[in-house]
Amino acid sequence: METYTTSYKQVDVEEKAYFIAIEGIEGVGKTTLAQQVAQYFHKHGREAKCSREPGGTAVAEEIRSLLKDPSQDIDSVTELLLMFASRSHHVSTVIRPALDSGITVISDRYVDASYAYQGAGRGIDDAIIDKLADIVCADTMPDYTILITCDPNVAMQRVIDRQEGIDRIEQEKMAFFESAQNKYLALSKKRPNYIIIDGEEPLEVVKSALDKKLKELIPL
Amino acid sequence: METYTTSYKQVDVEEKAYFIAIEGIEGVGKTTLAQQVAQYFHKHGREAKCSREPGGTAVAEEIRSLLKDPSQDIDSVTELLLMFASRSHHVSTVIRPALDSGITVISDRYVDASYAYQGAGRGIDDAIIDKLADIVCADTMPDYTILITCDPNVAMQRVIDRQEGIDRIEQEKMAFFESAQNKYLALSKKRPNYIIIDGEEPLEVVKSALDKKLKELIPL
Repeated sequence: METYTTSYKQVDVEEKAYFIAIEGIEGVGKTTLAQQVAQYFHKHGREAKCSREPGGTAVAEEIRSLLKDPSQDIDSVTELLLMFASRSHHVSTVIRPALDSGITVISDRYVDASYAYQGAGRGIDDAIIDKLADIVCADTMPDYTILITCDPNVAMQRVIDRQEGIDRIEQEKMAFFESAQNKYLALSKKRPNYIIIDGEEPLEVVKSALDKKLKELIPL
Repeated sequence: METYTTSYKQVDVEEKAYFIAIEGIEGVGKTTLAQQVAQYFHKHGREAKCSREPGGTAVAEEIRSLLKDPSQDIDSVTELLLMFASRSHHVSTVIRPALDSGITVISDRYVDASYAYQGAGRGIDDAIIDKLADIVCADTMPDYTILITCDPNVAMQRVIDRQEGIDRIEQEKMAFFESAQNKYLALSKKRPNYIIIDGEEPLEVVKSALDKKLKELIPL
């Protein structure tokens, strides 16, 4: 194991726990690719766990069902606050404890999903989201954010083909998803830790592109 | 009906809808006194409705049960965000529509409860609460806040005597309630719209003091 010595203590370089967010609109393949990232770590004998937002804890899963319930009439600011309540619980009870114990965390969505969905999608000012991000996420930002892109029409067809039923958010118009994806692309230009993967290719091609990126950026 | 004419339109002075918050620690008599305020308006033929926080809408009631569930482990920042999500839904679906239709709203707790409970009680900085208050409440602040005070030991004994079971928040130590009530008193010094009522007196005395204040401040 490669090590180096600081003036304070010896650090095992290979044991750094990573925090990786997977972002993208519905149907791009986030869940499958999150598992692939976890397997990449496991293959090298490293602990890694997948989680998801909104959700990831018992409290956050309750908030998730509330948010996904088609019978509820939830305004944009309330939705935003629920997303951040869920995120706050996820950070304090899953992400931070794992990272602090040296376990890598791969989260299916994180803070940039709020800029894409509640921001660009529902028209809430970035300045409002910045305030919440500052309260909840300032100390826990991803080492890498993997953005999976796809033509929104293709992605939505995949969601329909899953035949799991369409939830409240998935009922939104195509323009909403286009606008969310454009926001992710705009964020990727401002944030140097973005990795963009074309999710419209056949799954094996996508997985191979992701594998190449992981080997390049996180050599284990 | 008394009226006056502005350069734009005639306004019925007597039809102003008031937004009144009732604050105070558990067991001071908020629910009873909120009903008394509503009756004061009804007696004068004016529409008024009581509501409560956390709660007041179907979504907010779901959040309320989550917050009150003794089996959930909810950290302070998550609790604060859930309170404001609930408040946001309450404002957008109950308080604003009522006020905009000329109906007075009496809310059992509102934004200052967050400064008292999550702020003073749990140690969250006022600056963080200010950010959330600015997002959710800036356009909907109470005309009057009625603070009902009581020795925390007396108030807690009343809660125990109700024999309804003690919820997660009511399990907190006495110091928590003392600190919340002191915060309310500190806020009352900064906010000119506070009305302080001594809730430790026998109920008829308290009701009579409140009635006197209402007649003085809101002559109908």
